[in-house]
Amino acid sequence: MIIVMQKNATEDQIKKVCEMVENAGLGVHLSRGTDITIIGVIGDRRLLADKPIELMDGVEKTVPIVEPYKLASRTFRPEPTVIKVGDVLIGGDEFVVMAGPCAVESREQLLETAEIVKKCGAKVLRGGAFKPRTSPYSFQGLGEEGLKILAEARERTGLPVVTEVTSTEAVDKVAEYADILQIGARNMQNFQLLRAAGRTGKPVLLKRGMSATIEEWLNAAEYIMNEGNFQVILCERGIRTFEPMTRNTLDLSAVPIIKHISHLPVIVDPSHGTGHWRWVTPMSRAALAAGADGLIIEVHPNPQEAMSDGPQSLKPENFRLLCEELKKIAPIVGRSM
Amino acid sequence: MIIVMQKNATEDQIKKVCEMVENAGLGVHLSRGTDITIIGVIGDRRLLADKPIELMDGVEKTVPIVEPYKLASRTFRPEPTVIKVGDVLIGGDEFVVMAGPCAVESREQLLETAEIVKKCGAKVLRGGAFKPRTSPYSFQGLGEEGLKILAEARERTGLPVVTEVTSTEAVDKVAEYADILQIGARNMQNFQLLRAAGRTGKPVLLKRGMSATIEEWLNAAEYIMNEGNFQVILCERGIRTFEPMTRNTLDLSAVPIIKHISHLPVIVDPSHGTGHWRWVTPMSRAALAAGADGLIIEVHPNPQEAMSDGPQSLKPENFRLLCEELKKIAPIVGRSM
Amino acid sequence: MIIVMQKNATEDQIKKVCEMVENAGLGVHLSRGTDITIIGVIGDRRLLADKPIELMDGVEKTVPIVEPYKLASRTFRPEPTVIKVGDVLIGGDEFVVMAGPCAVESREQLLETAEIVKKCGAKVLRGGAFKPRTSPYSFQGLGEEGLKILAEARERTGLPVVTEVTSTEAVDKVAEYADILQIGARNMQNFQLLRAAGRTGKPVLLKRGMSATIEEWLNAAEYIMNEGNFQVILCERGIRTFEPMTRNTLDLSAVPIIKHISHLPVIVDPSHGTGHWRWVTPMSRAALAAGADGLIIEVHPNPQEAMSDGPQSLKPENFRLLCEELKKIAPIVGRSM
Amino acid sequence: MIIVMQKNATEDQIKKVCEMVENAGLGVHLSRGTDITIIGVIGDRRLLADKPIELMDGVEKTVPIVEPYKLASRTFRPEPTVIKVGDVLIGGDEFVVMAGPCAVESREQLLETAEIVKKCGAKVLRGGAFKPRTSPYSFQGLGEEGLKILAEARERTGLPVVTEVTSTEAVDKVAEYADILQIGARNMQNFQLLRAAGRTGKPVLLKRGMSATIEEWLNAAEYIMNEGNFQVILCERGIRTFEPMTRNTLDLSAVPIIKHISHLPVIVDPSHGTGHWRWVTPMSRAALAAGADGLIIEVHPNPQEAMSDGPQSLKPENFRLLCEELKKIAPIVGRSM
Repeated sequence: MIIVMQKNATEDQIKKVCEMVENAGLGVHLSRGTDITIIGVIGDRRLLADKPIELMDGVEKTVPIVEPYKLASRTFRPEPTVIKVGDVLIGGDEFVVMAGPCAVESREQLLETAEIVKKCGAKVLRGGAFKPRTSPYSFQGLGEEGLKILAEARERTGLPVVTEVTSTEAVDKVAEYADILQIGARNMQNFQLLRAAGRTGKPVLLKRGMSATIEEWLNAAEYIMNEGNFQVILCERGIRTFEPMTRNTLDLSAVPIIKHISHLPVIVDPSHGTGHWRWVTPMSRAALAAGADGLIIEVHPNPQEAMSDGPQSLKPENFRLLCEELKKIAPIVGRSM
Repeated sequence: MIIVMQKNATEDQIKKVCEMVENAGLGVHLSRGTDITIIGVIGDRRLLADKPIELMDGVEKTVPIVEPYKLASRTFRPEPTVIKVGDVLIGGDEFVVMAGPCAVESREQLLETAEIVKKCGAKVLRGGAFKPRTSPYSFQGLGEEGLKILAEARERTGLPVVTEVTSTEAVDKVAEYADILQIGARNMQNFQLLRAAGRTGKPVLLKRGMSATIEEWLNAAEYIMNEGNFQVILCERGIRTFEPMTRNTLDLSAVPIIKHISHLPVIVDPSHGTGHWRWVTPMSRAALAAGADGLIIEVHPNPQEAMSDGPQSLKPENFRLLCEELKKIAPIVGRSM
Repeated sequence: MIIVMQKNATEDQIKKVCEMVENAGLGVHLSRGTDITIIGVIGDRRLLADKPIELMDGVEKTVPIVEPYKLASRTFRPEPTVIKVGDVLIGGDEFVVMAGPCAVESREQLLETAEIVKKCGAKVLRGGAFKPRTSPYSFQGLGEEGLKILAEARERTGLPVVTEVTSTEAVDKVAEYADILQIGARNMQNFQLLRAAGRTGKPVLLKRGMSATIEEWLNAAEYIMNEGNFQVILCERGIRTFEPMTRNTLDLSAVPIIKHISHLPVIVDPSHGTGHWRWVTPMSRAALAAGADGLIIEVHPNPQEAMSDGPQSLKPENFRLLCEELKKIAPIVGRSM
Repeated sequence: MIIVMQKNATEDQIKKVCEMVENAGLGVHLSRGTDITIIGVIGDRRLLADKPIELMDGVEKTVPIVEPYKLASRTFRPEPTVIKVGDVLIGGDEFVVMAGPCAVESREQLLETAEIVKKCGAKVLRGGAFKPRTSPYSFQGLGEEGLKILAEARERTGLPVVTEVTSTEAVDKVAEYADILQIGARNMQNFQLLRAAGRTGKPVLLKRGMSATIEEWLNAAEYIMNEGNFQVILCERGIRTFEPMTRNTLDLSAVPIIKHISHLPVIVDPSHGTGHWRWVTPMSRAALAAGADGLIIEVHPNPQEAMSDGPQSLKPENFRLLCEELKKIAPIVGRSM
């Protein structure tokens, strides 16, 4: 960290800041410019995390140099993390497509969808049993009943299952049935939930919050990893901007950035990221081309009858066509599928 | 709701949409323009909440006409809601200032601050025992120990206490000690937490999410109210924008809008809303002038030693000066303080 | 357009709104719901463009149904517009790469870059002679001298030239030298400049404004087209969001949306869109995969010595590698290159 | 400026960066941390403005310490700038209200409005003759005819006139009639226009761009001031965010920030800032309370018949009531009116 002193800072003020830094167990390097004196802090700035240095007399501002997260950083672990779920490896050579309905609506609906997505090339089955909804008057999911149906679908198809957990109470229950625990965008900074999910030891799919910076997102991953669980899959799902034609703005540039600064795998959710099935196919291709490790896509046998997110769900035939395109693009960008 | 058909929609497609609406128990009103046919849906659109009408053949888009929330709306309850906490009325004539440290750090720190803010004119004491922090390496609060200190401060000063609850497990514990439960911005759409807080029957201070629209914020209030608890205080605390000079952009225009479309009281948090003590005083005055029902302000006896949010905490002397200004402005905008 | 009346609107108020609409030469269709009356306006809503209907007594709000632009819409022209520049067709089967330095810095620099990008596969040469810069203390371009160098490079390489015009006075001068006039993001709503560029009859590359919605962007195109010039190439170059790790957030979902609602070609600028050369290659691939008609990329023989935008410029070798990848992906998404 | 080297930067790389800095005429101060070496640049970083230092081998990133603008900064000029327009002083003790219609529509309309706003307490008359409109099909203003009407209104009422200039060609013509030249939000980075307006020597009211940071806004002022014209009035008019209930989000916190970091006066436009007359009164009071030097408000004798921006225009009676409230609040925050 660097501490920038005010133009008119006195010698005494500079001295006091240096003392404070040294008392925290850190080194100090003083740099006097023509106008401004700068104090370089040598050592781990986390030792100063909660000190309001900006308030000390004579201090203009502080500038962080090293990122606040550690375990999620490529500096900490230079090789990419590959996560094994059943026979599937996420974060390795394979481009992994996860697919299924937004919500588990019934046994028939889920089993049918599971068979379809498997046949097209999906390697993981998605489906929501606990649905966080903006309005209390919307369908809230089947709960444990939905989890059981997901488990049955896994039994039949061999596809591992990813499903969302929305409360700490439900973590153990969901972990009992699911292969991957999903933390939704709205809960990205629900720190109790992050910790609880981390403690299960199961892989966690962590969606980016609607207005989370990439740094905050990695800090959220840090909460999970800090529990000793390094199996975190990041999922870009669109951020909130002023553009009304899409439900969110899918920030695909987050993909190469994450691959560069973190060792964690990153996948893309083009269904929530755009909010309309029509943009799912082009943005899925784009995600692969941008370097993502996989996709999570909403597919419904009959979107017109879907109980949630129908407008952004692909029909089976469109999903099949998309997978065929992806299989052709994958080898060009060094991926198998 | 209005359903806009595509330019080339067939008679058959129009007929099918009308049937679907009528089957849901709603009325239909057909309007044929030169190019476009529009279907007006007569009745409560919540009956169609989960139907993906946009996916029916021939449909261009749907346009909501009535807001999705009900209990939080002024249409539902035309008179303003006034919430009684101890002897304090929130949402009435009085402009209510809540103040205290970001986090309870120690018995001495809190008791000292409580005395100070009371003397200056605060009517409610704030202080965090459970702190949601971006990084797992930051101070996370004293937990139940903090709650006990808050209760002792109430005992001594008579000030009711508002404190944050960050998990469903802690709701009962926090409700035991606090007079008002605070739901933080990061948890605005933690729907399990909203429901649990609602069920306590205690007043709930609901902060606006960092990227929540006003409509989503009122939908979150609806979750609490749907549990039979109408004592919700909304709190504007800044939204996330591209401007880096403030921690958030305080959206004061939300204040008159909320007062117009909802009956719930709305207060302002200029400390988080700006992120720097220097802007707290002018923005506090502005909040009062914009019509807010109160403020929640971070005050620390010695911000330089604060364990969290020091840079945005007012010193006691600045808080005293602010309260004196507020007392002078209040009567001009029809308020007492 | 639909006019939504207030819940308690009187018969007289409804009547007056209907009369106003009819007096403007439009038809009216009345729809009475249980609570709310809705007035459908039949005909071209542009006839009501400047009427503040929302202010009439009893009116709750108005809801537009048809988009405000006309010439840029696919409804107006169902087939895609293909623009011929020299031997290059933009908006057809070919995926067109435009490349060159941010700014023309010298004859040597530009001629060298032109040869390089041509050899790699670029079909249009870019280079700025007039540079709009955030600070008046930054390099502002070579002006007409730069235009002459661009013309010489075209002479030598046969590549048509795209260059930015930043003021109405310079439009004729720039049109004399350039094959495509570029309107930069900061000038997207400089309506005098749009009109002047339109009147030259030359193809215009219109960049999306930093905070422009897709609808506003198409409205800006409408200003050019309204001068009788239909040769408009849209260029997505990133929008402003809260994310600090990229200079802008490249909104690739705008690509399939534009292709769906407009007949105009759309290309992508990953250099400004991300602000760092490291993300240019993955986002270029993604743009192609998302359905863009081309790219405009900053390439510099020696980015370390660039006088502007060095950090986001590709080195020749990286540009060559990128073009080879693009050539492989193109046929899979139905493109030639 | 500070240059942060990569963790594994070599001695040779560090040496080369230092040489480059010294060759640019600047000093160097080396600070070696446990992991990371930091190079402090001593002197005016504008000398390095166009050097892409980030691209040098071994460099991680650069961190600016001093702001990029100079003339607009309080460091350059510690006392507030007060601008004299006729008998009015802007930026001094007086809180200055500017008011009038969005557009000059006719002689009668403007003269009537001028009399009204003067009587209520406005000190400057606003009115648009050249209207930048999102759609080419909207009313574009009366042009020079409008300027003449504005001059006549000044003649009759004694109120100085502020009006927008939208193109460099029109600058001289507008300067002939107007007392203050307004640069609109869409033209905040139309640098040719900024320079041309600067050269007239007339006071310039510079609106903040829709997605401009405060730093970019001051850089735009720098373009005007760099022409030797220090009479710049900044005007906050709302920024673009995700919130759809207001046309823009009025960023009132920009007011105290500008007053702190710049010597220029800053006023607020609550009409564009909110987009609806209902929020103009509370946000006007808030602007005064936040420390603004004045307001610019749209007033129309009959908003229902306004040819542009009717929904956000105050009726005369509401404007009168607002001015009375402002007169009462002003002395409390140290202002006269």
